[in-house]
Amino acid sequence: MKLLLSNDDGVRARGLQILATRLAADAERVTVVAPDRDRSGASNSLTLSRPLCPEQIENGFYSIDGTPTDCVYMGLSSLFSAEADLVIAGINHGANLGDDVLYSGTVAAATEGRFLGVPSIAVSLAGKKHFESAAEFIARLLKFCPELDLPSGSILNINVPDLPYNEIRGIRLTRTGHRHQAGEPVRVQDPRGKTRYWIPAAGAGRDTGSGTDFHAVAEGYISITPLHVDLTQHHTFDIMNNWLSGLEGILDQKPS
Amino acid sequence: MKLLLSNDDGVRARGLQILATRLAADAERVTVVAPDRDRSGASNSLTLSRPLCPEQIENGFYSIDGTPTDCVYMGLSSLFSAEADLVIAGINHGANLGDDVLYSGTVAAATEGRFLGVPSIAVSLAGKKHFESAAEFIARLLKFCPELDLPSGSILNINVPDLPYNEIRGIRLTRTGHRHQAGEPVRVQDPRGKTRYWIPAAGAGRDTGSGTDFHAVAEGYISITPLHVDLTQHHTFDIMNNWLSGLEGILDQKPS
Amino acid sequence: MKLLLSNDDGVRARGLQILATRLAADAERVTVVAPDRDRSGASNSLTLSRPLCPEQIENGFYSIDGTPTDCVYMGLSSLFSAEADLVIAGINHGANLGDDVLYSGTVAAATEGRFLGVPSIAVSLAGKKHFESAAEFIARLLKFCPELDLPSGSILNINVPDLPYNEIRGIRLTRTGHRHQAGEPVRVQDPRGKTRYWIPAAGAGRDTGSGTDFHAVAEGYISITPLHVDLTQHHTFDIMNNWLSGLEGILDQKPS
Amino acid sequence: MKLLLSNDDGVRARGLQILATRLAADAERVTVVAPDRDRSGASNSLTLSRPLCPEQIENGFYSIDGTPTDCVYMGLSSLFSAEADLVIAGINHGANLGDDVLYSGTVAAATEGRFLGVPSIAVSLAGKKHFESAAEFIARLLKFCPELDLPSGSILNINVPDLPYNEIRGIRLTRTGHRHQAGEPVRVQDPRGKTRYWIPAAGAGRDTGSGTDFHAVAEGYISITPLHVDLTQHHTFDIMNNWLSGLEGILDQKPS
Repeated sequence: MKLLLSNDDGVRARGLQILATRLAADAERVTVVAPDRDRSGASNSLTLSRPLCPEQIENGFYSIDGTPTDCVYMGLSSLFSAEADLVIAGINHGANLGDDVLYSGTVAAATEGRFLGVPSIAVSLAGKKHFESAAEFIARLLKFCPELDLPSGSILNINVPDLPYNEIRGIRLTRTGHRHQAGEPVRVQDPRGKTRYWIPAAGAGRDTGSGTDFHAVAEGYISITPLHVDLTQHHTFDIMNNWLSGLEGILDQKPS
Repeated sequence: MKLLLSNDDGVRARGLQILATRLAADAERVTVVAPDRDRSGASNSLTLSRPLCPEQIENGFYSIDGTPTDCVYMGLSSLFSAEADLVIAGINHGANLGDDVLYSGTVAAATEGRFLGVPSIAVSLAGKKHFESAAEFIARLLKFCPELDLPSGSILNINVPDLPYNEIRGIRLTRTGHRHQAGEPVRVQDPRGKTRYWIPAAGAGRDTGSGTDFHAVAEGYISITPLHVDLTQHHTFDIMNNWLSGLEGILDQKPS
Repeated sequence: MKLLLSNDDGVRARGLQILATRLAADAERVTVVAPDRDRSGASNSLTLSRPLCPEQIENGFYSIDGTPTDCVYMGLSSLFSAEADLVIAGINHGANLGDDVLYSGTVAAATEGRFLGVPSIAVSLAGKKHFESAAEFIARLLKFCPELDLPSGSILNINVPDLPYNEIRGIRLTRTGHRHQAGEPVRVQDPRGKTRYWIPAAGAGRDTGSGTDFHAVAEGYISITPLHVDLTQHHTFDIMNNWLSGLEGILDQKPS
Repeated sequence: MKLLLSNDDGVRARGLQILATRLAADAERVTVVAPDRDRSGASNSLTLSRPLCPEQIENGFYSIDGTPTDCVYMGLSSLFSAEADLVIAGINHGANLGDDVLYSGTVAAATEGRFLGVPSIAVSLAGKKHFESAAEFIARLLKFCPELDLPSGSILNINVPDLPYNEIRGIRLTRTGHRHQAGEPVRVQDPRGKTRYWIPAAGAGRDTGSGTDFHAVAEGYISITPLHVDLTQHHTFDIMNNWLSGLEGILDQKPS
């Protein structure tokens, strides 16, 4: 199996290194292409105003001065590993639960892989300690991946509890829960007297009951959530059609 | 109606100015909070490594040195228009069709609005000329918005063909089509001899048949696509459950 | 007289606008090329990792997504005002006194003009109020500039007290004084718990006695300081030669 | 001797690593604080719009998401090596000759050290091969540094030819020569059709005769140039006084 790995914590992050090392044992080829800096919160952003400069670092990984999405796009081009069988993004430092998936560069890296035609997985550790547990789980999961026949617009978002491998209680199929809103911007004054505002930390979980990713991880289970890459919300088409049929005259020349 | 406007082309972009001017005629209040620079391709990215510095510019709009998502988050806080009834992102310079919605900062601005509890619309002009047409359409659409009872995880992605208002042929409910992949990175040498690579332009449409947003706009219709904010792919749960039940022993201590 | 104007506070800063308006009355041509954002503290930095994107804004000024030095370099190229007779950088918002000149983007803009063969002046207002005073002074000074026969490696750094024009007491030829060191980095915690450090505000004046730029401005005088562009410190050559003659054997192969 | 090292090529650059390794053999303490990325061309720029986030990397060096000047400022604060006896910036990848010194982040790092009260040296290799030669030279030079009694506003800019140590022909005290101007901006089109312009490579040497830094290095000698930190150009004061005495009436209220 030929693997492309990326993340959003940066090419030198521990989670990525531990994952690459573990997977190298079994895979035919492991190529790592990741951002040169921490790009947490990068979502699916692309770098359009400047060209990118890939560089191979001492351990053989490729570092790019861009976003996770840039990295996976470049990583799947002929420059790197054009024939990857699977893209794995992570191991993220910290969970990607609930609404985090919208902002996460790690989930975005997986989305980009899927968008470019390659099955893709995002994996996060709900903590900063037992990266080996997440790496071990992914290594074992890979053997089962060929049997998974997901639609082409799907990725898997996997969150692993921060536990020793033998203390993980099982696997749960989950939906993304929701967080409370993050609260107000955090006001600060810089040393030259200018007022500036931080985006605050993510809110605490709000919709975290049974069935959610929050709940699974809190109970010591690995959470697996299938996510859309195609954003069309087909099940609202009836509601929409009803509404649109009432927009009579909206395109007439004379303002109503 | 109290409106919050944003975009990804920057606070001084023509599309945003034309929209704000047109909507000011009818709305109770129009607040504009947008990025200080062109942030096309920003997706849902958040600025986490530095605080933001909002500034009011000469026309009363607020400019922030951040992403579209930052702007909507700040715009809906108590600093600006905490009680907005609707977030409108745009008018984007150029269409947001098919896979564009993943990368678009304009669509992301609407997503953030919805995520923070406010109904939200993204609007793009499939060209750079008839911004007035898009503004006129949105102005008229607002009267119908209170009647639209979408689920709380939905936004509308609207693309308007670049035509005079009276030449627009109608409105179509659409799904997002798909583009061809963008092709290989564009290799350049900088003047100091370093090789760098541009992310190429988006690919041409591939899945653009009847029913897609591409098709509607190409035919001269306004395209309206409802998009998910919640990414969980519920309809794959059966496939997933099946697969997961076969992962026997994956958590056992001894590697299989 | 053909003038190129730039600054480091950004193309829309008040000081720059007031200066350009005042000079347009007399000059044959006034071209303005300045950074799109506040770039205070940019010194002589150049943008080497990406290409720049000049854009003309609504008042005719050119905005560039780069540093003050980038702007003057571009401004003196054939793209803009290849035949400028004089580069004027400013009016800076706040004084550039003492060691500020090392870090100032405004002084750097003048340095770049001189380096490219054009006589150059940096002008700063020691406050944020009476920009008209500084503009008026520069407008009048221009008539005398042809008579000034400075060596080719010199620029003038002008600081104007923040007073109505008729309250300015005179002009003083000064040397740059010195500031106290800025003190310790200012420690903050971001909302996600990471410790970060601000560069503090510049220290208060330390060497500010008679003859310095600090002193002139404090007393209500315009301060004019000629600054080097060529950094070679010729007057230390004797000391250096002495020292170098004692480095005996330093190039011998065997470590001493 | 307690040393603070920095550079502008980034904390992981080979030149810096080779220098730190060589100096660690003799020095009492070697602290390295350098930018996380290549910041060539940064000059004396300071980061004022965001706080900085220092991080220790695996080899013990400190990496900062800022400029060389930021790094030396932070490096000499109580956070790192408050009591350094000497700041050494380099080994720069490529020469810093002639007008390069204005833009160089490496020279700026030395300037900042001197400005904060610590004797400082910038060292560059005129190539990318024999970093060991430059490191060896600096290691030996350190023993002589206590005897050098330079004025407090001086730094040494050292350029080492890219030769094996035993092929270096000697040491020359030099002045900075000059380069030809860099020529026109390099026009490119990005893949989305926008015209952008690169700052071109530095011009070739123009004033490169005997006595210059260019000449010394070209002949196989180590070039040492003392540079000003204080930019006041005292030797032009007579010319200036003459001129200023002719500015009669410039401050009168009625425009002349």
